[in-house]
Amino acid sequence: ALWLASSALQAEASPPKPHPTPSTPPSTAKPASPTTPPRIRDRMFQLVREAQSHICAEIEAIDGGKFREDTWERPEGGGGWSRVLQGGNVFEKAGVNVSLVYGMLPPAAAKMMNARGKNLDTTKSLPFCAVGISIVMHPSNPHAPTIHCNYRYFEIIDEKTNEPVDWWFGGGTDLTPSYVYPEDAILFHQTYKDVCDKYDASFYPEFKKWCDEYFFIKHRKESRGIGGIFYDDLNAQTPEFYLNFSRDCAFALPKVYVEILKRRINQPFTQQEKEWQQLRRGRYVEFNLVYDRGTKFGLETNGRIESILMSLPLTARWEYDQHPLPNSPEAESLKIFQTPREWA
Amino acid sequence: ALWLASSALQAEASPPKPHPTPSTPPSTAKPASPTTPPRIRDRMFQLVREAQSHICAEIEAIDGGKFREDTWERPEGGGGWSRVLQGGNVFEKAGVNVSLVYGMLPPAAAKMMNARGKNLDTTKSLPFCAVGISIVMHPSNPHAPTIHCNYRYFEIIDEKTNEPVDWWFGGGTDLTPSYVYPEDAILFHQTYKDVCDKYDASFYPEFKKWCDEYFFIKHRKESRGIGGIFYDDLNAQTPEFYLNFSRDCAFALPKVYVEILKRRINQPFTQQEKEWQQLRRGRYVEFNLVYDRGTKFGLETNGRIESILMSLPLTARWEYDQHPLPNSPEAESLKIFQTPREWA
Repeated sequence: ALWLASSALQAEASPPKPHPTPSTPPSTAKPASPTTPPRIRDRMFQLVREAQSHICAEIEAIDGGKFREDTWERPEGGGGWSRVLQGGNVFEKAGVNVSLVYGMLPPAAAKMMNARGKNLDTTKSLPFCAVGISIVMHPSNPHAPTIHCNYRYFEIIDEKTNEPVDWWFGGGTDLTPSYVYPEDAILFHQTYKDVCDKYDASFYPEFKKWCDEYFFIKHRKESRGIGGIFYDDLNAQTPEFYLNFSRDCAFALPKVYVEILKRRINQPFTQQEKEWQQLRRGRYVEFNLVYDRGTKFGLETNGRIESILMSLPLTARWEYDQHPLPNSPEAESLKIFQTPREWA
Repeated sequence: ALWLASSALQAEASPPKPHPTPSTPPSTAKPASPTTPPRIRDRMFQLVREAQSHICAEIEAIDGGKFREDTWERPEGGGGWSRVLQGGNVFEKAGVNVSLVYGMLPPAAAKMMNARGKNLDTTKSLPFCAVGISIVMHPSNPHAPTIHCNYRYFEIIDEKTNEPVDWWFGGGTDLTPSYVYPEDAILFHQTYKDVCDKYDASFYPEFKKWCDEYFFIKHRKESRGIGGIFYDDLNAQTPEFYLNFSRDCAFALPKVYVEILKRRINQPFTQQEKEWQQLRRGRYVEFNLVYDRGTKFGLETNGRIESILMSLPLTARWEYDQHPLPNSPEAESLKIFQTPREWA
């Protein structure tokens, strides 16, 4: 009986039932007893919902607009809580999504995971649960960067005991400016280096490199932005260790991002600068649709399409064979995207 | 010795050599003797170059602008002739690309082909040659449709004899309006039905269905446009049969498209109609980057990125959870994208 006996889920926010035959937990599921410690999946869920509320509040404070929440249910199990602010004062589009999906992992998704080193049985569907928060925020001002983060917990579940037989944490936060301001890049990277260093001195150098590799747009031979940290498949320490690490990473986001926004959102800009931003947003779309693991996972596991593609910018542009003028600010930024630097 | 002993290539348009060590034909290659009939690959090349010139001339006549040609060389063999008209009077962006690429087929590409029914050896790289024309034209006016076509010839080559050991033709033309005008849809489909019927009465019904299936955006549960014809892996008849069919299809394009453009390009439009067009262009981007076979093939075989992504519109838009008003023209068009119709 695969059921997320989740007090958090039950108490806090059961998604509405838009489907005529909603997937209800099987009747054989045992609710968690009050003396049983909460499962990691429940604690992660609590964590990402708290982070969602905190981050939305901070972003509303600087934007002046309000997030709207849509909840959705996945027919095969689980669902999500999508919060989107569109057409705000600072943001063209900002999304803060929490999802908790469970059910049987399609062999195609297991194969993708094995391709990066997992050893999952791909001859049958495996019971799984994934809990995570995903954030993408696209400000209007071309001098203000887009930010993205994702913090997630994944487990393969034993159908009999409802306990994880395999689990790992993944996550990361990265910044995508159209115009690179070195002082912003330094502040951003230093912030995440500080968080990493609290946990393991090897984390930042390793996760920074991983991020540069992950967000590299192979067909363009350039990165989509200035990176940050990225990691996946972490399970060498206790789950508690990674829960704390995830929390610190997620809560660092509004702090550093609001500071950078304050520097940039009132900066005047030209039509030409707006067009450069639009071209860079085209690159963002290319990365997300061609390479992004989360997008592919969402499309393959039948997630809610509007929540998955919430990451796409409001507008984007593709000019044929466009090259910035030599020594222009656009060319300088492009150089940085082509050769990632050390910032912290 | 794998060399396209192509009189067409040699005589007409050898691409410039932007690379410091251009790939030159191996010295063991035997030039075609004057008494040898030209190879299919050479005849297809001639055909697509002629179609390119003809189509560009027809489009320049209605637009008033001029195509610019960029030639490119593929380091591993072959290259292309990309013609693009950007910022014209009628077109935001129109591209007419010819490419002739050859070399060793990456096992990943062979696997993609096997996935659709081929039986290629994926344990080693295979010598191949691909010749084709690709067209995508995005007009400014939201009442005027985008058109796309691709006609291609593919062969796997015996390294010793330089003769094909396997070959097939693929192609198709499809129309993507933002607002569906039934009279345009009928004219478009009838034109291609007429071409198909000249060759085989089973072609149009089969290729129309194939087109609807191919251009279906699974994650949206809608088609990107109103279809047309699509086919692949044809080799039951002689190569000559398919050469003639490809030629008739390619030359039908400017005739029917210019007729439709004349009906639409002077129609007034509102800002709201322009935004609907932009949203539909977002769908176009989603299809091309997530599903399109030609785009994937280009990215995997190291084609010129600006030529591959020439298909993307100048601008596109993604609004969160946007739904047209009931009974609006947008809703009527969307209904047609969701349930493909018979038009001819």
